[in-house]
Amino acid sequence: MENPDLLKEPLIAKIYPADVIRRATENLKKFPGTGAYSHSKGLPFVRNAVARFIQRRDNIPADPEDIFIYNGASPAVQNALRLFVTGEHDGIMIPIPQYPLYSASIKLLGGTQCGYFLNEERDWATDITELERVYDESVAKGVTPRALVVINPGNPTGQVMSEDSMKAAIRFCKEKKVVLMADEVYQENVYIRDERPFRSFKKVMHSMEKEYHGLEMFSFHSISKGFLGECGHRSGYVEITNIDEEVKAQMYKLSSILLCPNTSGQLLMECMVDPPKEGEESYSLYIKERDEIYDSLKRRAQKLTTFLNTLEGVTCNSAEGAMYAFPQIRLPDRAVAAAKKAGKKPDDFYAIQLLDATGVVVVPGSGFGQRTTPFTSARRFCLPSTRFRG
Amino acid sequence: MENPDLLKEPLIAKIYPADVIRRATENLKKFPGTGAYSHSKGLPFVRNAVARFIQRRDNIPADPEDIFIYNGASPAVQNALRLFVTGEHDGIMIPIPQYPLYSASIKLLGGTQCGYFLNEERDWATDITELERVYDESVAKGVTPRALVVINPGNPTGQVMSEDSMKAAIRFCKEKKVVLMADEVYQENVYIRDERPFRSFKKVMHSMEKEYHGLEMFSFHSISKGFLGECGHRSGYVEITNIDEEVKAQMYKLSSILLCPNTSGQLLMECMVDPPKEGEESYSLYIKERDEIYDSLKRRAQKLTTFLNTLEGVTCNSAEGAMYAFPQIRLPDRAVAAAKKAGKKPDDFYAIQLLDATGVVVVPGSGFGQRTTPFTSARRFCLPSTRFRG
Repeated sequence: MENPDLLKEPLIAKIYPADVIRRATENLKKFPGTGAYSHSKGLPFVRNAVARFIQRRDNIPADPEDIFIYNGASPAVQNALRLFVTGEHDGIMIPIPQYPLYSASIKLLGGTQCGYFLNEERDWATDITELERVYDESVAKGVTPRALVVINPGNPTGQVMSEDSMKAAIRFCKEKKVVLMADEVYQENVYIRDERPFRSFKKVMHSMEKEYHGLEMFSFHSISKGFLGECGHRSGYVEITNIDEEVKAQMYKLSSILLCPNTSGQLLMECMVDPPKEGEESYSLYIKERDEIYDSLKRRAQKLTTFLNTLEGVTCNSAEGAMYAFPQIRLPDRAVAAAKKAGKKPDDFYAIQLLDATGVVVVPGSGFGQRTTPFTSARRFCLPSTRFRG
Repeated sequence: MENPDLLKEPLIAKIYPADVIRRATENLKKFPGTGAYSHSKGLPFVRNAVARFIQRRDNIPADPEDIFIYNGASPAVQNALRLFVTGEHDGIMIPIPQYPLYSASIKLLGGTQCGYFLNEERDWATDITELERVYDESVAKGVTPRALVVINPGNPTGQVMSEDSMKAAIRFCKEKKVVLMADEVYQENVYIRDERPFRSFKKVMHSMEKEYHGLEMFSFHSISKGFLGECGHRSGYVEITNIDEEVKAQMYKLSSILLCPNTSGQLLMECMVDPPKEGEESYSLYIKERDEIYDSLKRRAQKLTTFLNTLEGVTCNSAEGAMYAFPQIRLPDRAVAAAKKAGKKPDDFYAIQLLDATGVVVVPGSGFGQRTTPFTSARRFCLPSTRFRG
């Protein structure tokens, strides 16, 4: 598809809608083809499209020079963490339960993980008193928290943060002079849009008093989630806000070492942030597929959490967003004893038994750092994610 | 192209040769589509194909479990280096001039670069006395060399190592108990095939006495070089030989953090290591394009280095392989003085002047760590690389 003349072939017009051919033709004028290296931060026209997408979403200017594209949001996160960690005296505050990318990367970089517990009783809320407890305890141990990681919507906990909670986190970061790392990769996966739509941290920050507008912030997004789910293509970006030019130069240098993000993924990123528009030939198909996948994810999220709460000894917060439910399962004494006898943690034991008995795969909650008591262990259930083309 | 039924459409048969459609159909049975995550080490059928390719090339068994695919050879190298470096007391021996990936990654990981000079007078040969000098000096400074990096064919120096030289490097590694990191990404770019064909370090090692067969080795390859040149797709692999199971498990864990290499690049890797065969519909076109690109690269390598040697004050070893020439340019006193006056290094100054006067881009040699005297500075010339589909 990289030969512009091929796009004029009548055969192609029979396979692809006209707006797809138009876009491919236009894009081919903007770069030499997927086989060539791109700019290390990503193709300029893709970064422009990402900036326009953010601007439309937040109604706040976004600069393509503040966008760095990577082979997925994971390396974007890992590279950002690298900027904050020089040794074990540097701490990164991460939510517990958390997505293991964070704990593994902090360990790899030689920093200190400062875990703050999400409040399960309040729908996995981020409590400021808990953030302050962790901050103070870290400092007392000689560790300086450099960044606060917030995952919204939550992975693996599925909550969508309230605006008040987001503001409190922003105030905390400003007061403590820590960078806010906003993992916003599930921004399209919000199942309570009417009452609590997704709002980016950047937008919320700009809705606050002027003194907060200068907060240093990293926001991550990806083609792997949402209704698109093109995770195998590995493309993600970070938007940096209020970051020093010197730091930006170091980020650029880090990107340059590995040459560039993969180009196919970049093109999919461009499709995600600039989808078919009303009046274009593929618009109705796009809307149909988008809504079907979204509705299906929402339906399954609700069905799963409702069902879990009907089970004896099981409670589960509603999955307001993302792709996961994180139920708490209270095991009877005899199950805990049986696990002990088998030399396994109770939640590991339960997960294996469940798999053997039913074929259902769950991930033991202790892997996410969740608190357990002998009689309580939380487990993660993955709602099956759906790909764009099924 | 991920809908198997689409491949049966008569239109598709008009665009693609039959063997391409057959392969796509076969491959679609082996994985769920490019949009899904693959195994963290890479799709099993791609790793199988890589192992068969290595086995055909070397006539020595290769195990798909010893193949790790990454988003290019660069992250493969960076991940390997990570295994050897725990602090500045760990050294990595790298050739000078060298490809900056190595120096940058060693610095990033907090290790110590132990640079050994290639012998420009002997066509950029790797001298064992020089390896021993660097090893001993490193140890004397409290640094233990953990790995020896050899780039063959050389980047940016273009030499193809002799078998004797490779054997000497293997003996050195065995004696000093250092891991051999063989950067073999230019294995298809050998322009003196008749007199000195590419031989992998693995093959050479197995041609030696049995005592050398257990040497720990990492060998890197990529879709970015050769006649393919699909660098934007970011796909590379490492084959590990004689590596401890515990280390393998750590490598797998490192790969898992970033989920998987991009799938499009993996499919291109499969095409590279298992090209069209005699009798297949696209075979003659494949051979034609392959040979045209190879011949063109070879022609340009010879033309460029021959021409450089006709210039006053310029000498250049022949580019036996890879895609670069690395001439030495002896600047007259007045040019050095003019550079000094402009506040620039002589080679930086020359590169800018050349660009302004002729439009020819060269990279100053000091960036590759090459030795300079006030009257000597080596510069790198890139032969323009050519992509598979022009």
